Amino acid sequence: MSDDLSSLIGKRIPMLDRGYVELQDVMPHPATGIRADAAIVASARVSFMGESKGEEADRKLIHYLMKHRHTTPFEHVVFTFRVHAPLVVWWQWVRHRSASYNLMSGRYIELPEDEYYTPTVWRKQSPSNKQGSLGELESEAGAALTQELIAHYERGHALYKQALAQGVAREQARLFLSGFAVYYTGYITQNLHNMLHFLKLRMADDAQHEIRLYAEAIYREFVKYIAPIACEAWEQYILMG
Amino acid sequence: MSDDLSSLIGKRIPMLDRGYVELQDVMPHPATGIRADAAIVASARVSFMGESKGEEADRKLIHYLMKHRHTTPFEHVVFTFRVHAPLVVWWQWVRHRSASYNLMSGRYIELPEDEYYTPTVWRKQSPSNKQGSLGELESEAGAALTQELIAHYERGHALYKQALAQGVAREQARLFLSGFAVYYTGYITQNLHNMLHFLKLRMADDAQHEIRLYAEAIYREFVKYIAPIACEAWEQYILMG
Amino acid sequence: MSDDLSSLIGKRIPMLDRGYVELQDVMPHPATGIRADAAIVASARVSFMGESKGEEADRKLIHYLMKHRHTTPFEHVVFTFRVHAPLVVWWQWVRHRSASYNLMSGRYIELPEDEYYTPTVWRKQSPSNKQGSLGELESEAGAALTQELIAHYERGHALYKQALAQGVAREQARLFLSGFAVYYTGYITQNLHNMLHFLKLRMADDAQHEIRLYAEAIYREFVKYIAPIACEAWEQYILMG
Amino acid sequence: MSDDLSSLIGKRIPMLDRGYVELQDVMPHPATGIRADAAIVASARVSFMGESKGEEADRKLIHYLMKHRHTTPFEHVVFTFRVHAPLVVWWQWVRHRSASYNLMSGRYIELPEDEYYTPTVWRKQSPSNKQGSLGELESEAGAALTQELIAHYERGHALYKQALAQGVAREQARLFLSGFAVYYTGYITQNLHNMLHFLKLRMADDAQHEIRLYAEAIYREFVKYIAPIACEAWEQYILMG
Repeated sequence: MSDDLSSLIGKRIPMLDRGYVELQDVMPHPATGIRADAAIVASARVSFMGESKGEEADRKLIHYLMKHRHTTPFEHVVFTFRVHAPLVVWWQWVRHRSASYNLMSGRYIELPEDEYYTPTVWRKQSPSNKQGSLGELESEAGAALTQELIAHYERGHALYKQALAQGVAREQARLFLSGFAVYYTGYITQNLHNMLHFLKLRMADDAQHEIRLYAEAIYREFVKYIAPIACEAWEQYILMG
Repeated sequence: MSDDLSSLIGKRIPMLDRGYVELQDVMPHPATGIRADAAIVASARVSFMGESKGEEADRKLIHYLMKHRHTTPFEHVVFTFRVHAPLVVWWQWVRHRSASYNLMSGRYIELPEDEYYTPTVWRKQSPSNKQGSLGELESEAGAALTQELIAHYERGHALYKQALAQGVAREQARLFLSGFAVYYTGYITQNLHNMLHFLKLRMADDAQHEIRLYAEAIYREFVKYIAPIACEAWEQYILMG
Repeated sequence: MSDDLSSLIGKRIPMLDRGYVELQDVMPHPATGIRADAAIVASARVSFMGESKGEEADRKLIHYLMKHRHTTPFEHVVFTFRVHAPLVVWWQWVRHRSASYNLMSGRYIELPEDEYYTPTVWRKQSPSNKQGSLGELESEAGAALTQELIAHYERGHALYKQALAQGVAREQARLFLSGFAVYYTGYITQNLHNMLHFLKLRMADDAQHEIRLYAEAIYREFVKYIAPIACEAWEQYILMG
Repeated sequence: MSDDLSSLIGKRIPMLDRGYVELQDVMPHPATGIRADAAIVASARVSFMGESKGEEADRKLIHYLMKHRHTTPFEHVVFTFRVHAPLVVWWQWVRHRSASYNLMSGRYIELPEDEYYTPTVWRKQSPSNKQGSLGELESEAGAALTQELIAHYERGHALYKQALAQGVAREQARLFLSGFAVYYTGYITQNLHNMLHFLKLRMADDAQHEIRLYAEAIYREFVKYIAPIACEAWEQYILMG
């Protein structure tokens, strides 16, 4: 079992056209043989100085904690992800202030020409939900739009390169770029409690499709395997509740 | 004196080509006649259940608190600013996780065509400081670059409008825009302790010029007037120290 | 209406035998004529750059925000309370990490002899809820217990005074005191979003009676008057939901 | 080398008369073979998408980060400690809001009679530092005071037991106890950046002796071994700087 979890460390899930999420580290680490659910239980049991009384009692305790929003025990499980995502996704992500972020900097480095998010499917504006999308553009019109997008990215990037060649500072030359589309790489460290809060908001129906893909990959490919009982309780009381 | 401070509420300082910072509110409010420095002192004195012993003693206490990093009393002074700034500035700002933000949403509204940051001066890449700038492009070359930038903004915006006209969702159509340049409006609420930390980092020499202008305006036009003794101590022990 | 709210500033509600909660300040301040609910709406409307469309539309927006857990607009309303409570209450309070605290220090000052919490009613241990109470001790037994408690407080305080007289440091001499009962004075600054979270947990049935009294006083005497629409929505979607 | 660090997990350092600190877990875990300093470097290098260029370059980068207060890379190293300490220590500890805490609860369990902090050395009040101590009581007077303290603890605990026997709720019966002296067990999870801030304040000369012992043990027995380069830089630029 712990072997299975070890294989999650360093596992990279491709996202969008050239993004990914990769589990960098987790505490407790699979190599220790300690399960995340067990770490939650251990910290919760300190309240009454009790010892674990077997798997079924542990499950009940985790369900009790989740149901009654005793959230602190879930803070002792911590994840680090390496994420590669366009700025339109990061722009929403970094608003979650409960995580630690380190991101690539467009001031330090020249942004590469092949690192733009290029959708192949174009979603239509939802008439009812002002911030959402509903349905898709037909494929021919979509393909044409994608071609125009690529051409616009290329024009912008060429101007960026030209400005850099003239000696303009990177921090300012990036004004030429199609900023929302630029891929950034970053590290995110967050505890399970705060991550579940992020996931609730960004796996929701009204979240933007792009960040939803990342949130769902984080949940379904990693968090759910690493803390299965906590996730089972979370789905029951918080996600569906 | 409190009349002077009242005039700061709602005062708008123009920034860059079409941005601004405006003090929306502050606690304690000038209308109460209570000075921010007095609120700091009042909360600090609760440690030893003491009363204020006059202005000179208050000044000494604030200097003592700042010098010895007793930071909590500075958390009881709270500011709300309304800020209009390009995304390149917000992208750095929102990384400060100790503030409360509400921002305009490019998912909710169509971004207007005349709301792009257009520099007239182009800074050159610093050879020594990899993330900074040094000196300026000569004015003729700069003017030409600005014209290219405006033309590129217009092309991108036209494509954005065209995509919207085809029914594409706003959240996705914005990929066409020169994202770093788009002006966003937002509310920022932050206490004095956390604001001074933000200001130290963003008024620094190595901060990007654009956000420095905002940080300096916040400090010199508002914070310094509202909490003059705390700012005097901060300059002495933290900014210069 | 704003006159009514102004009278809340400085209003002190007695708690337990010698405690109190007092509203020290609030942003927006009543003297400005701006209602807290209006500040919430103003910050939320920046998302779509909209203006207030009257009271009924504002109410609907606040309900929408609360129902869908769009919590950031509630962070721009900020309260400062001055609280006088026994350590048994503070011990639970300071675990809420989203507030700014300044407290009296038993290292700085000699703790006074008449500042102990002395209950007149003794609650019985709940048989079902391991952390709670149910029912009361009969009055005669209770009165006897209270007398023993007072006598024990006095013995402890006399030993504390004796240790101080011998030159022992206050920080160490306090080991003699009945620490849970000692009254501390403190300042608490917290925004509405975080305060409502605190209130949900500490107004709950399973919260300890003493802190529940404080939480309920804060809610019913202050917060509910200052942000009536937000509180109405909170009761509907969060407290009862 | 990684073997040495593995032996730190579960290592318990005795503190005061019956307390301890024990490293429960750390991310990155020694079993992974990844050093904490390497994790700091890896997250920092994402800024410029660079790879590690050997130990000396890594050391320089960490020194640069610490010197210029680029603090986020230090947030990806996370510790969990199990701590057993008297409330007088926890009372100060939990005021650090940047950690995750789970503590034993005096509402859930009956506090045991042999779990009181009993100093053998009594420190004298500092005449110059109002919140500190200087020198010690002579040993004979100190021994007598300790005997009085023990007797007072016993009287209080007997009254607590008597109240419980009468059916009084644990949450209220604890008023009889010498609360500052009661040992509590707790879990603390905190990242390296926030832990170093805690350590700076609590290893300082003016910190109370008891919490200083815990802070110094955490630093000298654990943190310093786990992140030696970060600690070397911290001592140079922050602790001594």
